Amino acid sequence: MAESWSFLDAFEPNFRPLVVIELAKGTKEETLKWFTKRIVDKKANGGAQLLVKPLVTESGDENIYLVGASHLRLLLGAETVGLVKECNDNSMRTFTYSSRKTFKDFADDNHNFLTMAECQYIVKHELENLRAKDEKMIPGYPQAKLYPGKSIVRRLLTSGILVQIFPLHDREELKKLRQSWYGRVKVGYQPLDEIRCYFGETIALYFGFLEYFTFALIPMAVIGIPYYVFAWEDYDKYVMFATFNLLWSTVILEVWKRICAIMTYRWGTLLMKRQFEEPRSGFHGVLGINPVTGREEPVYSSIKRQIRIYLVSLPFVCLCLYFSLYVMMIYFDLEQWALDYHEENESNFSNLMLFVPSIIYAVVIEIMNRIYRYAAEFLTSWENHRLESSYQNHLILKVLVFNFLNCFASLFYIAFVLFDMKLLRQSLATLLITSQILNQFAESLLPYWLQKRHKKRMKKSISSLKTDTDLSLVEQVNLEKEMGTYFGTFDDYLELFLQFGYVSLFSCVYPLAAVFAVLNNITEIYSDALKMCRVYKRPFAEPTANIGVWQLAFETMSVISVVTNCMLIGMSPQVNALFPDSKMDLILTVALVEHLLLAIKFIMAFVIPDKPRDIQIKLARLEFESLEALKQQ
Amino acid sequence: MAESWSFLDAFEPNFRPLVVIELAKGTKEETLKWFTKRIVDKKANGGAQLLVKPLVTESGDENIYLVGASHLRLLLGAETVGLVKECNDNSMRTFTYSSRKTFKDFADDNHNFLTMAECQYIVKHELENLRAKDEKMIPGYPQAKLYPGKSIVRRLLTSGILVQIFPLHDREELKKLRQSWYGRVKVGYQPLDEIRCYFGETIALYFGFLEYFTFALIPMAVIGIPYYVFAWEDYDKYVMFATFNLLWSTVILEVWKRICAIMTYRWGTLLMKRQFEEPRSGFHGVLGINPVTGREEPVYSSIKRQIRIYLVSLPFVCLCLYFSLYVMMIYFDLEQWALDYHEENESNFSNLMLFVPSIIYAVVIEIMNRIYRYAAEFLTSWENHRLESSYQNHLILKVLVFNFLNCFASLFYIAFVLFDMKLLRQSLATLLITSQILNQFAESLLPYWLQKRHKKRMKKSISSLKTDTDLSLVEQVNLEKEMGTYFGTFDDYLELFLQFGYVSLFSCVYPLAAVFAVLNNITEIYSDALKMCRVYKRPFAEPTANIGVWQLAFETMSVISVVTNCMLIGMSPQVNALFPDSKMDLILTVALVEHLLLAIKFIMAFVIPDKPRDIQIKLARLEFESLEALKQQ
Repeated sequence: MAESWSFLDAFEPNFRPLVVIELAKGTKEETLKWFTKRIVDKKANGGAQLLVKPLVTESGDENIYLVGASHLRLLLGAETVGLVKECNDNSMRTFTYSSRKTFKDFADDNHNFLTMAECQYIVKHELENLRAKDEKMIPGYPQAKLYPGKSIVRRLLTSGILVQIFPLHDREELKKLRQSWYGRVKVGYQPLDEIRCYFGETIALYFGFLEYFTFALIPMAVIGIPYYVFAWEDYDKYVMFATFNLLWSTVILEVWKRICAIMTYRWGTLLMKRQFEEPRSGFHGVLGINPVTGREEPVYSSIKRQIRIYLVSLPFVCLCLYFSLYVMMIYFDLEQWALDYHEENESNFSNLMLFVPSIIYAVVIEIMNRIYRYAAEFLTSWENHRLESSYQNHLILKVLVFNFLNCFASLFYIAFVLFDMKLLRQSLATLLITSQILNQFAESLLPYWLQKRHKKRMKKSISSLKTDTDLSLVEQVNLEKEMGTYFGTFDDYLELFLQFGYVSLFSCVYPLAAVFAVLNNITEIYSDALKMCRVYKRPFAEPTANIGVWQLAFETMSVISVVTNCMLIGMSPQVNALFPDSKMDLILTVALVEHLLLAIKFIMAFVIPDKPRDIQIKLARLEFESLEALKQQ
Repeated sequence: MAESWSFLDAFEPNFRPLVVIELAKGTKEETLKWFTKRIVDKKANGGAQLLVKPLVTESGDENIYLVGASHLRLLLGAETVGLVKECNDNSMRTFTYSSRKTFKDFADDNHNFLTMAECQYIVKHELENLRAKDEKMIPGYPQAKLYPGKSIVRRLLTSGILVQIFPLHDREELKKLRQSWYGRVKVGYQPLDEIRCYFGETIALYFGFLEYFTFALIPMAVIGIPYYVFAWEDYDKYVMFATFNLLWSTVILEVWKRICAIMTYRWGTLLMKRQFEEPRSGFHGVLGINPVTGREEPVYSSIKRQIRIYLVSLPFVCLCLYFSLYVMMIYFDLEQWALDYHEENESNFSNLMLFVPSIIYAVVIEIMNRIYRYAAEFLTSWENHRLESSYQNHLILKVLVFNFLNCFASLFYIAFVLFDMKLLRQSLATLLITSQILNQFAESLLPYWLQKRHKKRMKKSISSLKTDTDLSLVEQVNLEKEMGTYFGTFDDYLELFLQFGYVSLFSCVYPLAAVFAVLNNITEIYSDALKMCRVYKRPFAEPTANIGVWQLAFETMSVISVVTNCMLIGMSPQVNALFPDSKMDLILTVALVEHLLLAIKFIMAFVIPDKPRDIQIKLARLEFESLEALKQQ
């Protein structure tokens, strides 16, 4: 069987495997035939017109297929998905096959015009757009219903016939990328353009943001060091640091938008038109007419969804928040109890007892976070959002609010109820450093060990195969299909978001936080890079023009930090000493300063343009050209 | 000569005068010929392909021209300007001549398919787009330089050869509109669609906003009345009123966006693509290449403009604000002095003296407002903005900030420095009622008197003409060209903005403000309607999709009012009595409530969608269709 594969390979030398489709073992012959026929069928017949080949494993099962496409097919697909590429005159334009000659580096025999990630994105898009015609069900599986226009791949996935679709790694390219990314210890920028070519824009943008954020923290870290070294405790120095911090955090978030625009313009995604979004695979409803497309598809009443969101999810989230606060109060009671116990009968045991509440609390927090995450995913899925983007936004919002409270509630309580600045500094440092060490472990050491173990196991199983020409491909597919799936940048951004909270919320009591954040992020870049290149399956490229809802989350955090920092400064004994007679004047002054700072923040956000001038001009030029073209018509 | 006119009229019975062009008296024959030739010339020769006829006045001068266009020309022009009309299937689509049959009410002989305002807008657009070809100057005026692509009409205007261009009233339509708008005393909605057909979207949207705002104020007024009637002074009632007020003002501003979207969708302007904006007529610079269009035109360095804005205009505005505050302080000193004088030697004269400072201050404020307005216009013009929209935004911002301070600074001073609630209530009532009476006088009584006087004068001059068939047209043109020009909705919105300030900033000390605002706005609708129909020249229709920068201004005011109201409540003796021991707790509570209210405001603004669901679906459907159309290509 392995020979038939290599024969096919020789027969069609152009076939370059791009995407792997893994079907469930024992999928019916009838289904396999129908599905592969639909993939290779002509567009006119409702097919995807791609190339497909079975991969023969040692067991002889035909349940893994490799999908590729001819060069011409990919170019046509690039037009369908609306890729934006650079032209000969250095402007960015939407690619069309008819105008292909005007694009930079285009040649009919240059198969590198589209990056492999782009080719895989096109193939994925074409596969997902394979739609049922008059089939009422998936052949061989009467329970897997279809209706005209339903995405076949999505139905196969939800009915469990299709196990997974993933893009193949390009081992040569990956090696080069690894080398330039983290191969040598060097100080400098990441090869973001290469990362984007290999992993797509969403992931490249995350690494771009991580890098930018790290650089942006350096000034704060540099200013923070002397506070630690010289043990500065003057109020005016703290005020200066906090003020700088607040304005700086506004500036960096605004400047990021500009840098992001520059990057995504260069990558073409800033100009890419939003495609019409298909319903997400989990979406269900009764068959009806979609008011937008006029096609028959499941519809679900928006009012029902609103009811679920506001009458179930919202109260549930509030309840969870309340519960989290309640647990925190128990923790503080326990802490107090342990302290009392320690004071009453001082011994080694009582000394140990002092740590017990913190440990219990840390464990409980971790457990709550995990349970809540599942609950949030369940609830958001139950809310039955039609679009993946709307599902993601609702999920992010739920998780964000809960994580924020879980991480920072105890700090808020210490700061504004107990008024214990020393404890605050200590807790902040402990939380920040512990969470960073845990994350580093969970993100780089653990995966590294898992991966090593996995490789060893794979080597063993592969050595039992007889060696032939395509062994490396079979080996690669088998290796990669067992690798973990990268579930998107959510957790990575969440980590940065919480870090930003630790750095900015209480910056004026613990200026050193920025230093730790910078140190963490430098290793974070390496461990995340390792994770992407070594631990996970290659993810599909996802074109994106910005970091979306995270921009809003970071901006909200920066507004909250104005409030907390002003309160902290107002509570410091040094500032209190300035107003010996009247607490009222003190608080009024602090409130005034806070409102002024907030006003300055909003004005700055308003005044700094979101896009640099040259990008604005380029966008205006494109708009002008399309208006002129319309007039010519 | 009058006979030649009526002869032409008979010769081309289709000619319907739309727009009047008034050239300076004594304009050279050569220039007239060249200009009229360019207007009637074929599009292919760079003309506007419109119809033009001289209007012969009693003096025999040929300096007034009437411009019209054939039905076909107007339809083609509607496509050029990108008008959006309703189709037979009730969807809104961009009009194209080739798809004209699919539009509602379209028939080749139905000359009412385009409203007269639309026709006039098209003619104006075509006239403004008459561009110089190889002329180096306006024939006959060597000092009026031209360069290829320069708008001829704009150069004629700036060099004073062209006095004005204005659209003609349609006396029949106007009569009908007047009748249904304010002809009979009735309770009900304004005929916004008719207003839009006659005056265009910008003006209809202003009246829509005025009406909406009045209705939105009614709940506040209704709740405010018992406070006055029963002289409620309980703190909890004030707190309730203020809280309701703050949330209500957020809701009404959010709901307005939705109502605005519904209206502008129906009018087609929500979907209208932004046209490429030409430089405004006052813009100057050295000839260069526009980076957007690639055409040769005057360019002006953006850095120079930024320097002018930030190093000259900004300091100047700050200085003016400082000066205004300084004048206010002098006023309070004078007030104090008058009070002291009155106490020392009480007499009729001293009683009179008590009013002198207020009167002087009111006069000075008025003078300052006027001088500042001129200064702001001069400065903004000197900043040399390329686009009219950017000029307008900078001007609005300057005027807004100064007017805000001028109107409210004394109230802020009374409330938060003098802590005199009784004086605040009194000043607020005086300012609100005085400004409303003054405005009503300046906007309806004065213009009515002026217009009456003008009509009498016109009647006299017209009666000296011999009566013939076109007398009514000649009379109409002569009458209208002498009417005042309506300079846009700026002053009307400004008035509403300041009124919103009076109602919301200090709502908890003076709940009756909303009642006065409602009463004022009801008469305001009538006086503004009178103004538009009777006092001013007909303005050109201006398509617009929203109220633009005013939305932001109103939202900012509503944020500021949260802060002021919380402070006022915190300062009230009733609330103070609740915290007898600790002023600190009081202030902290107030600050907490304020932050909560602000957070609720932002969350509400975030949660309430800007467009109603059905409009969202309609927009999505159009987008989907255009994506599908692209795919078909």
